[in-house]
This record gives sequence, structure tokens and C-alpha cells, in this order.
Amino acid sequence: MRIVVPAGGIGGARFLRGLKAALGIDSPVPEEQSTNAITVIGNTGDDITLFGLRICPDLDTVMYTLGGGIDEERGWGRADETFTVKEELAAYGMRPTWFGLGDRDTATHIVRSQMLAAGYPLSAVTEALCDRWRPGVRLLPMTDDQVETHVVVEEDGRRRAIHFQEWWIRHRAAVPAQSIVSVGAEDAKPGPGVLEAIAEADLVVLPPSNPVVSVGSVLGIPGIREALAAKTVVGVSPIIGGAPVRGMADACLDAIGVETSAGAVAAHLGADLLDGWLVDEADAGTEVEGIEVRSRPLYMSDLRTTEAIARAALDLGRELAGRKGGGE
Amino acid sequence: MRIVVPAGGIGGARFLRGLKAALGIDSPVPEEQSTNAITVIGNTGDDITLFGLRICPDLDTVMYTLGGGIDEERGWGRADETFTVKEELAAYGMRPTWFGLGDRDTATHIVRSQMLAAGYPLSAVTEALCDRWRPGVRLLPMTDDQVETHVVVEEDGRRRAIHFQEWWIRHRAAVPAQSIVSVGAEDAKPGPGVLEAIAEADLVVLPPSNPVVSVGSVLGIPGIREALAAKTVVGVSPIIGGAPVRGMADACLDAIGVETSAGAVAAHLGADLLDGWLVDEADAGTEVEGIEVRSRPLYMSDLRTTEAIARAALDLGRELAGRKGGGE
Repeated sequence: MRIVVPAGGIGGARFLRGLKAALGIDSPVPEEQSTNAITVIGNTGDDITLFGLRICPDLDTVMYTLGGGIDEERGWGRADETFTVKEELAAYGMRPTWFGLGDRDTATHIVRSQMLAAGYPLSAVTEALCDRWRPGVRLLPMTDDQVETHVVVEEDGRRRAIHFQEWWIRHRAAVPAQSIVSVGAEDAKPGPGVLEAIAEADLVVLPPSNPVVSVGSVLGIPGIREALAAKTVVGVSPIIGGAPVRGMADACLDAIGVETSAGAVAAHLGADLLDGWLVDEADAGTEVEGIEVRSRPLYMSDLRTTEAIARAALDLGRELAGRKGGGE
Repeated sequence: MRIVVPAGGIGGARFLRGLKAALGIDSPVPEEQSTNAITVIGNTGDDITLFGLRICPDLDTVMYTLGGGIDEERGWGRADETFTVKEELAAYGMRPTWFGLGDRDTATHIVRSQMLAAGYPLSAVTEALCDRWRPGVRLLPMTDDQVETHVVVEEDGRRRAIHFQEWWIRHRAAVPAQSIVSVGAEDAKPGPGVLEAIAEADLVVLPPSNPVVSVGSVLGIPGIREALAAKTVVGVSPIIGGAPVRGMADACLDAIGVETSAGAVAAHLGADLLDGWLVDEADAGTEVEGIEVRSRPLYMSDLRTTEAIARAALDLGRELAGRKGGGE
């Protein structure tokens, strides 16, 4: 089976680990998989340039998580990380100080920045970085164009747009967002291989990632949503019992006027896109018009439970694809 | 007394520590010195760009040594240094791997590179970095223009020029140098404040730095040598008993056809420049035409002995300045 997964962040990366297990993908090199293969369309809207370094948090989280380099506790950044460079930059008075720039991570950003400066597109850079990490999936940036998620906030009666990372990390999403804007998205083109991978996919799975700034950013690149909608698409709800499983997705949903519930998120993603939707047992009984909703335990407490969730998504996908195929 | 010291590298930085002590300079901020002040004209010929970072080894060695941040054992780089970024860059296959890029050091290079990219000249960047380190001297780059010392070597019958750092660190100066070239020096201008500081100086002291690539590079900037030569100049021999006190200055002297001896180095620097020359007791009896040579212990084994060497240089300078003044 060829699966496409639009993903970003910790939830997406952890789900992908379960999906690899469910598909029996244990080789570190995607090309060696003869039958099952995963292509990840990575969110780049969180990307930011700090200290002259181009930082791609979501691509790195997927790469490190699947490549065995992630800090399991934090969920982001490298295991055995130190923060000497960050502390020294602060000692020089450099701003900002709120970004968690690790020393190991710094090397990744230096390699990326050097390659970008040399003229390579982000897709080529990501492929080069994955040569080391061998995540076992094909990791494609959603676009090679610069797209950055900005958040409009109001402070002292004055509205201003700040980078998503500043809102998310510095303010812990506690400053209410007036709106969330994907700067540059309108003119961005899908990255090399993205539309091809979708066209060849047997199934699209939306992981329990932030529906607004992770999956939402990928869907915001012109051409991607339409291509995905033509496929059988099954999603895993990132909302359980009216709260995000992890992170602060509720603050993002508030900003776009969507209720923090499994059903409202599915409706927001849309019946034109979603064929099936897995919700937690706590949300059993959820109904969304035009979308097949199934309930089952959705907490990704370890690899075994995550694999079971992925299997359920694959099963529902196969079932719906058969129906869809039969209906076409 | 206002002293100007053209300096580079470990020998120069350590001597400066003794000179500060001899002049009673213990304030970290040069401006607070009402009577005695040191201006260092720092060698930038060793500077190199690696991984997109602009690295100024000699300026940093002076800044860290006088500012209390140096690794005393190694003589270069930061105390309590780690090398995570370097190891990670190597893990990505980045070249070169021979440069000792420390994590703390990396932050210095990031700040410098960011400021240079923003359009600030190296002199302004160095001043900003010194705001943190407060070395107690005014540290001026010899030039704001890019000057890089390259070494012509012959390998397998083929001549090629490599950066001084590659020759010095990677090859440990063991590959014979055909010649040493200061690329860009001819068109370089002295940095802001350099000629003014020399004009106002009561005395110029040449520390026991590498006479070819440290002091020599500073002298190679058009205008600097002439300005220095108009002053009373006292030097401290970096050669004791026919060998460099530290480092591989002999390999550099070989390359320019100068014997590794205290007398030959003085003669190479020239009687037009040097008024006085301190040699070690091992070299007592050294005579150089037109230069007043004095012998005394020159090993900088600790701050006390280094201070005594600096005092001897100051005493000789005062004596010769009196004579020179009397003769003018």
C-alpha cells in the first residue's frame, strides 16, 4: 500500500511511527520497501530564520522521531541535547532567547542553511538530511517556497502579527489569536514529488496533528487539498473529549472559530476531503454529515497502541476505498 | 603611557596579560584608564569562513584571554568548551572536520556573522563582542577589509595555495611551505582608529607572536608599518635558543627564508622598524645592526614572569624613546 500522510509536529511524528509498524516498515530506507511505502508531506509553515539559521521544526521532528534521534520526553529536538550555543548567544545579548536552540540541532540548521545559501531547494536539503537519519519514509516539504504561519494578536489595543513560533513558544499560545495567517501560501507551489505521490497513493491518512497549523498549513498550499480530496482520506482526531491530546490546538481552533471537539474538527476539514474519521471512545456517537465516523481508543501511549490506531485507520481506509471504488 | 601592540595568537595574548599587569591596568573597560592604555592591532589574516560562520581566531584569542574566557591549557578557544556542533556537522558529512569549532565559540561566530551580514564592519563587530568580554584593552582589527593568509604547498608535484588554518591545524605546518601569501593585503586599508592610535602612542611593543603570520600580517597592511616605524618600537623575541617558544613559527620562517634565531628575526623585522629587541638569556650576545638588543629571561611561565618581561620591554622603550627624542 502506498500511503500519503500530511503531517507536522509531535502528534504527526508519533503516529507515523505507529503507521510504519502497522505496515511492517522497519527498513530505514524507503526505497527498500517493495510493497508498502509512506510519503510524508511535511508542514513548513512553522519554519523560522533565527540567528541566520533556517529552522524547520516540523520536518526535523518527523526526521528525528522516525530516525531515532528525538528526545522522547520533550517530543522535539535531539536526545542528549545541550544548550550551550543558546546560552552563549544570550550572554552576548542576542535576541530572541525564547527559542529552544539545542547544540545538536544547531548543526542540522547550519547544514540546512548552508545548502539553502548554496542554492539548493528545501526539498533537496531535506533529502540530504534524511540521508543521515533514514526515517524509513519519504519526507517531502509541502512546498519549496517560503510560507510562514503568522498569528495576529492584540496587545495594549494594538494589533500586530507575530511568527507562529513566537506565539506558540514564547507566549505558550496564551495570548488570544485574532487570526492565523499563512503568509506566502497563496503563491506557493506544492514541492517536487508532492502531487505525484498523492496521485499514486492508495490511501491518505491525516494523523492526529494540529488541524489548523500543521495539517491545515499543508492543505493551504494551492493544489494539495484538491489532489488529496480525490483520494480516499481517513483522519485520526487530535481532539479527545473536547481537548487536544497534546499541545494547544484549542487555541488555534478558537482563533478560526471552530469548536474544540472531534466532530467540529472533522466538519471543519470537510466532507469533500474526509471520507473517514476516527474518534476516541470518549467521543463515541459523534456524527458528521458525509463522513464515516468510527470510535476506538485514540491515546498514543506507546508504540503498540499507536500501531493499533494506525491499523484501524488503514482498515477503515481499505473499507471506504472499496466502497468509493465500487461507486465510481 | 599609551602603548600600541600589534598582536595575534597565543603568545601575543599571553604577553598582553603581563603588559596589563605591568601598567597596572586591571579595569575591564579601557576608557576607565586615565593614564595607561593599550591599543591592540589584531591580526585578521588567520580569519576563515567555515560552515557560513566568519571565524577570527586571533581576535578571539586576545578577547578571550584578556576577558577571562580562554581555555588556559589549550591557549585557544573557550574554557569548559564542548564540541557537539562540530561532531554533529561531521555526522552529516560536512567538511572540513579538522577545525576545532567549539560550541561556545560557535555562538561568538554566529553573532559576528550575523552582524557582518547586517553590514557592520569587523571593527564594529569586534567592539560589540568586547562589550561582553571587557578585555581592558582597545582591540582593533588591523583592517576591515578581507585579508587571508594562504600558504603555497607542493603535493605530488602540484603546487596549490591552501588557507593558513588548513596548513596550520590540519597539516600541523608539517607540509613544507613554498611561500606564504597575504591575499588581499595590498588593497587593504588600516582599520578605523588604527593609524590614529599609532600616532598617539608613546611606545609600540611587538609581543612574542609569530613574526611571519601574526605580527608580519599586521605589518603587511599598507600604511601600518610606516606609521609604526615613526615610533619607538621594542620587540620581544618569539625565538629562544633557535626554536619558537610555542607553536610552529620555524616552519613559517623557513618558508620566507629566515633563520629561526632571535637575531635573524630582528634583522628580518628591520632596523627601520625596531629600536629595541629583547632576547632570552640563552641568546645573550646576539647583535643586530641598528637595534639595541638586551637579554633577560623570556619564558612566560606565569603572570609574574610575563609581567616582568613586559616591564623590561617598557623600561627599554622609555630609555630608547628618551634617546630618540633627544636625537630628534
